[in-house]
Amino acid sequence: MREVAIVGAGMTQFGELWQSSLRDLFVEAAAAALRSAGADHVDSIFIGNMSGGQFVGQEHLGPLLADHLGMAGVAAVRVESACASGGAALGLGFMAVASGLADVVLAAGVEKMTDGADVTNVLASAADQENEVYHGITFPGLYAMIARAHMQVKGTTEEDLAWVSVKNHKHGAMNPKAQFRTEVTVDQVLKSSMVAEPLRLLHCSPVSDGAAAVLLCPLDKAEKYTDKPVKIVGSGMATSAMALADRKDLAVLDAVAQSGERAYKMAGVMPKDVQVAEVHDCFSIAEICCIEALGLVSEGKGAKAAASGHTALGGQIPVNTSGGLKSKGHPVGATGVAQAIEIFEQLRGEAGERQVEGARIGLTQNMGGSGASSVVHIYEGVR
Amino acid sequence: MREVAIVGAGMTQFGELWQSSLRDLFVEAAAAALRSAGADHVDSIFIGNMSGGQFVGQEHLGPLLADHLGMAGVAAVRVESACASGGAALGLGFMAVASGLADVVLAAGVEKMTDGADVTNVLASAADQENEVYHGITFPGLYAMIARAHMQVKGTTEEDLAWVSVKNHKHGAMNPKAQFRTEVTVDQVLKSSMVAEPLRLLHCSPVSDGAAAVLLCPLDKAEKYTDKPVKIVGSGMATSAMALADRKDLAVLDAVAQSGERAYKMAGVMPKDVQVAEVHDCFSIAEICCIEALGLVSEGKGAKAAASGHTALGGQIPVNTSGGLKSKGHPVGATGVAQAIEIFEQLRGEAGERQVEGARIGLTQNMGGSGASSVVHIYEGVR
Repeated sequence: MREVAIVGAGMTQFGELWQSSLRDLFVEAAAAALRSAGADHVDSIFIGNMSGGQFVGQEHLGPLLADHLGMAGVAAVRVESACASGGAALGLGFMAVASGLADVVLAAGVEKMTDGADVTNVLASAADQENEVYHGITFPGLYAMIARAHMQVKGTTEEDLAWVSVKNHKHGAMNPKAQFRTEVTVDQVLKSSMVAEPLRLLHCSPVSDGAAAVLLCPLDKAEKYTDKPVKIVGSGMATSAMALADRKDLAVLDAVAQSGERAYKMAGVMPKDVQVAEVHDCFSIAEICCIEALGLVSEGKGAKAAASGHTALGGQIPVNTSGGLKSKGHPVGATGVAQAIEIFEQLRGEAGERQVEGARIGLTQNMGGSGASSVVHIYEGVR
Repeated sequence: MREVAIVGAGMTQFGELWQSSLRDLFVEAAAAALRSAGADHVDSIFIGNMSGGQFVGQEHLGPLLADHLGMAGVAAVRVESACASGGAALGLGFMAVASGLADVVLAAGVEKMTDGADVTNVLASAADQENEVYHGITFPGLYAMIARAHMQVKGTTEEDLAWVSVKNHKHGAMNPKAQFRTEVTVDQVLKSSMVAEPLRLLHCSPVSDGAAAVLLCPLDKAEKYTDKPVKIVGSGMATSAMALADRKDLAVLDAVAQSGERAYKMAGVMPKDVQVAEVHDCFSIAEICCIEALGLVSEGKGAKAAASGHTALGGQIPVNTSGGLKSKGHPVGATGVAQAIEIFEQLRGEAGERQVEGARIGLTQNMGGSGASSVVHIYEGVR
């Protein structure tokens, strides 16, 4: 297998982008990624997208988006793993380059959520339709059950959950691409309207439009495109029981732990080596569960990590310096690739106000559904 | 890169399977594939599916189906390229094994189309939503335009189109898994009701439920599973302009030709070496365009190939011995994998009444939309 590097990146603003269609968003991000690397050709394109069919009546995104990028002809395919679609597309792009079957690969993600579809119902199709959705469950409801289990087993409080949002909004306020660039206080979070007890509005990531793309090539060809490539040194995916009711412990995300183990093993990296991470905070409880499952904090220390500053910029292991899904926004298919872009910028020393000084090893973790699928990547800067 | 072999296969009956849900269909096919090889473990699963979201309200098929197969934990992802989703899943499964990132891979496809969704509208989402579907086009309409162009440019007749259906029904009548096991006559085809001129009902593949799965592993580990592995020696994917109006020549399927060239090149095989082929006859005109684009018949000889017996069982290059999409059925996400199973059985000498004697090199071609994406695989038997 060949060593693989990210050599270019581009993304749209995340937010309610009424003036842009799904294809517009993809082309903007993909063209920016190509331009950033001075590339005018790719061998193949992997597109993470959860639900173009249900959101905007458009499946078959591979040829549509290749065509609109001006690249009709190239191999292009859509990859879907609900909200982990972007991470899955990145993983397959990595595999394509590592295998030698492709030299230059565009791994992208896109979602257009604000075009009139019933978003809550569409997102629910990432849960078990027969055993969960049919009975009326929604995603805030599923994560509320995870939060309640975490509170019961580990003593996590509503304030602990609020601190995750406060930290991520603080980070996101410094990110020009973020949907919400406003800081929030613990008090504001705890007084925001209840969505699914104990999760309030400000514990929940928003509905967003957006796209993100990275350009991958073999490390030994990276200098053609950039003098600051970032290596992907580990890639792991895992699944877990689809329905929450089938999990042994609601407060533990098996697939996150297992995808992390696979990525750490491939990378030869330990959790303590990671200096900056983007994890899947679709709801504030998710960030707590994920940093625990990934070993980024000691067992049982997840709940207090945001409040104590441990996972804030300047802390021991900054998590979601981009603002995370909560503040940067969560166009579901794009999220996994946008996470990779934050780490790409961090490891190149280009994260501006959000820079983690001296960061050399980074991690992204992207999750589908209520944690039924998870994709982890580990990166190493070579600057 | 490692050599890759198919070592097991399983599929459901194709048809209107009212008693089986999407997950039931997948599990039946996947379990049969595993059983056929005596395998109880896989490293990863690739699932071709066009539109679980629109057809049955279910995205996130990777973890759902891995879980219901009793394999929660393994990496599992859905791959979508409209009606070429199965072929695309097979291509990524091939890549996973070839790269060395996975040893045992299940490549599967599944579609549940008869569960109440508006099938014509869902299938239309494989065309260009903004530039085609919005204006009222359907898939029979798109292929009718391709047929008219072919008739105008190459003198193809309605009888030529009818012979494709007659041939494929004759083959399908011998296939126990086929949806329609009845022969039809040219007269019956030409008297069937008009769908989109010049395409009549018996020129069109049906709406189907079904699933298919193959087990892949490195060739040097194949003997653990079977004494008759079938090598995948070429894998090619390509795209073309999404909207028909953007193609140079409506009667030529660029993506099919280009995906074929890529697969032939990887395999070191020439079109004349192919002894049995399954191509994407979603409408009878499609088979004619595809065998021309793949070089399986000489330029301009596609139209008469079925009528002359050239592509029938016993002819020079038997095409769609399974019955093709027309007679075997077309559960869209499953089709590409079912094609591979027909060739797997042919190259093992296990195709029964449909056997092409002495076949050693086979080909499958699976297409999305009106030819905007295409995937070709080439196989070599080692018995």
